[in-house]
Amino acid sequence: MASARSAATRLTRSSLLQLSRAAVPPPSHHPNLPYSPREYSRMAGSVGSNGCSAVTRVLFCGPYWPASTMYTKEYLQNYPFIQVDEVGLEQVPDVIHNYHICVVKNKRIDSDIIAKATQMKIIMQYGVGLEGVDIDAATKQKIRVARIPGSTTGNAIACAEMAIYLTLGVLRKQKEMDTAVIQKDLGLPVGETIFGKTILILGFGAIGFEVAKRLKPFGVKVLATKRNWSSNTVPCDLDRLVDKKGGPEDMYELAREADIVITCMTLNSESVGIVDNKFISALKKGSYLINIARGGLLDYEAVFVHLKSGHLGGLGVDVAWTEPFDPEDPILKLPNVIMTPHVAGITEYSYRTMAKVVGDVALKLHAGEPFTEIEFVN
Amino acid sequence: MASARSAATRLTRSSLLQLSRAAVPPPSHHPNLPYSPREYSRMAGSVGSNGCSAVTRVLFCGPYWPASTMYTKEYLQNYPFIQVDEVGLEQVPDVIHNYHICVVKNKRIDSDIIAKATQMKIIMQYGVGLEGVDIDAATKQKIRVARIPGSTTGNAIACAEMAIYLTLGVLRKQKEMDTAVIQKDLGLPVGETIFGKTILILGFGAIGFEVAKRLKPFGVKVLATKRNWSSNTVPCDLDRLVDKKGGPEDMYELAREADIVITCMTLNSESVGIVDNKFISALKKGSYLINIARGGLLDYEAVFVHLKSGHLGGLGVDVAWTEPFDPEDPILKLPNVIMTPHVAGITEYSYRTMAKVVGDVALKLHAGEPFTEIEFVN
Repeated sequence: MASARSAATRLTRSSLLQLSRAAVPPPSHHPNLPYSPREYSRMAGSVGSNGCSAVTRVLFCGPYWPASTMYTKEYLQNYPFIQVDEVGLEQVPDVIHNYHICVVKNKRIDSDIIAKATQMKIIMQYGVGLEGVDIDAATKQKIRVARIPGSTTGNAIACAEMAIYLTLGVLRKQKEMDTAVIQKDLGLPVGETIFGKTILILGFGAIGFEVAKRLKPFGVKVLATKRNWSSNTVPCDLDRLVDKKGGPEDMYELAREADIVITCMTLNSESVGIVDNKFISALKKGSYLINIARGGLLDYEAVFVHLKSGHLGGLGVDVAWTEPFDPEDPILKLPNVIMTPHVAGITEYSYRTMAKVVGDVALKLHAGEPFTEIEFVN
Repeated sequence: MASARSAATRLTRSSLLQLSRAAVPPPSHHPNLPYSPREYSRMAGSVGSNGCSAVTRVLFCGPYWPASTMYTKEYLQNYPFIQVDEVGLEQVPDVIHNYHICVVKNKRIDSDIIAKATQMKIIMQYGVGLEGVDIDAATKQKIRVARIPGSTTGNAIACAEMAIYLTLGVLRKQKEMDTAVIQKDLGLPVGETIFGKTILILGFGAIGFEVAKRLKPFGVKVLATKRNWSSNTVPCDLDRLVDKKGGPEDMYELAREADIVITCMTLNSESVGIVDNKFISALKKGSYLINIARGGLLDYEAVFVHLKSGHLGGLGVDVAWTEPFDPEDPILKLPNVIMTPHVAGITEYSYRTMAKVVGDVALKLHAGEPFTEIEFVN
């Protein structure tokens, strides 16, 4: 364990796999699958339902979020007729014609790439965000596009916890705390509590719900926006959790009351740059902004200008405008800006759960079984 | 606001005061005081109840936690007959004979210093920790010793929030996240959620209660120790918050179940070094340790050895064995160790509230009024 842990700090893939094995024993059986490995293997003797091959091939677009590939490979290690590969972003167009399933991660899958994906059956995300996929082009080519809903994998819980970590980080002024330790200061900086604050959650989906559930006992007022509050995804104890509900059009009105804004929306053509100059100007002076969803929700220029003027008191983000983000970008040099490397959803628990979903999708595609646990968007 | 914020990052005292004024308007009246400034001033015309002077003098032992002195001075700015000074730790013995009230912060007040405090009426903490004060020596000299209970000032809430910040920081591997951002890695490290963990709170007082209240909705099992569970400080919904209760003697038994230990105890002769080799050895491999109470609760050698071996998975501390702590200390170089500069209780809200308590103590001593809001220990 000791060597696994210290190795993991070197951030190599092999050490990551080693760590994961040490920390959580890999599952010995797949209880949700209808057949044993031997039975799947027999089915694979004929042409699999992937349509053209006795081996079903899964392509992970790398090199980031390496644990997703590792855990999926580990989950499928007893199924030699499922092949899992990872290639760098640049190589994807050259090899995609060989694969039946593509796990996109942060690769932009446009119509040109889709045109090359001649054997592809399913394009999916290792998580929820599908903003990089040209869904129309995929539909035309009869490729199905799917996400893994965050509510069932622990992804929403993990993201909510990260939102709270970032919120506490900006309220307590993480950078100044680090400086104080190095400078041997004590009792500086003076921070703020979550207690007593008004929190505006933009996009009250699975993550927003988990954020509100955890923040309410901190002693806060919760405001939230959602396109359709009457949809059945809304949990039942909603009135206890949310003090004021609004539609997307109410965000400017609600902004006037908020001390902290947490963006939990899907990124699409309507939400891109939604946190803009108009919205930020409506916030109280010194408000804090937290983003654990997608970098594109925030208008970079507007956020930068308002951080610089002090109208925004701080920014905590797990996601950036381009990823990986330039560590020398001027926004990261501003006093109360903290960033984490797009790891909000990345925990042993959520990643192993999603590896099982991807693995089961591959096995079921191979056997011609119906898919469960993924949500198709086309 | 912009200039106040950027100035504050330089960590100077004047900028701190400027910041605090910008962020929260100073109180314009003192509703809990029986007399107006003018009436107090009239009383001060005669010899004040401090016994020997028309001016009541308050000594803050500096230079750390500067906001405590700033906010108290600000609160008392309309009362010229109360004089608030701060001197460095070294100068305290030379000047203490001039003062009626001493706010100790991290100054050790031993019997030699007390012997010099010939005009002293009250020795108090800007908070709860009185482990540095020789209470017996003070009692012999008829000096009263007092703390400000954390449950009424927001101190317990602020400390509980910091405990959660540090817990999330070690679970998500803060240092590795920072490295990943700098190295342009994405999706690394793989962290852990609070969700699903078993939390052991050592010392279920005001802070422990606030920690449990906030962590329960994260989906955790809470174990806790307390000397006397039947005492009236125990809140009523205890059974909902704490899954398993124990006395101090049960800590080794409870340790076997815990994934995360949060120390919230007072430091005294019984609790010093209580987190020792015996206790840590009883924990599961990879457990995490969080300390927002006092550095002396942890046996440095035991913690260091078990971090190094990987038996402890991480350490998050707001308090250290000596303060300020040497930033080059080897324990801070270990992979999953994070430290904040003893700021758990330090927020605008708690510090302004405590400034009011100290200010009111000075005004009431001056006027011969009974003290409220402080808890005497002798």
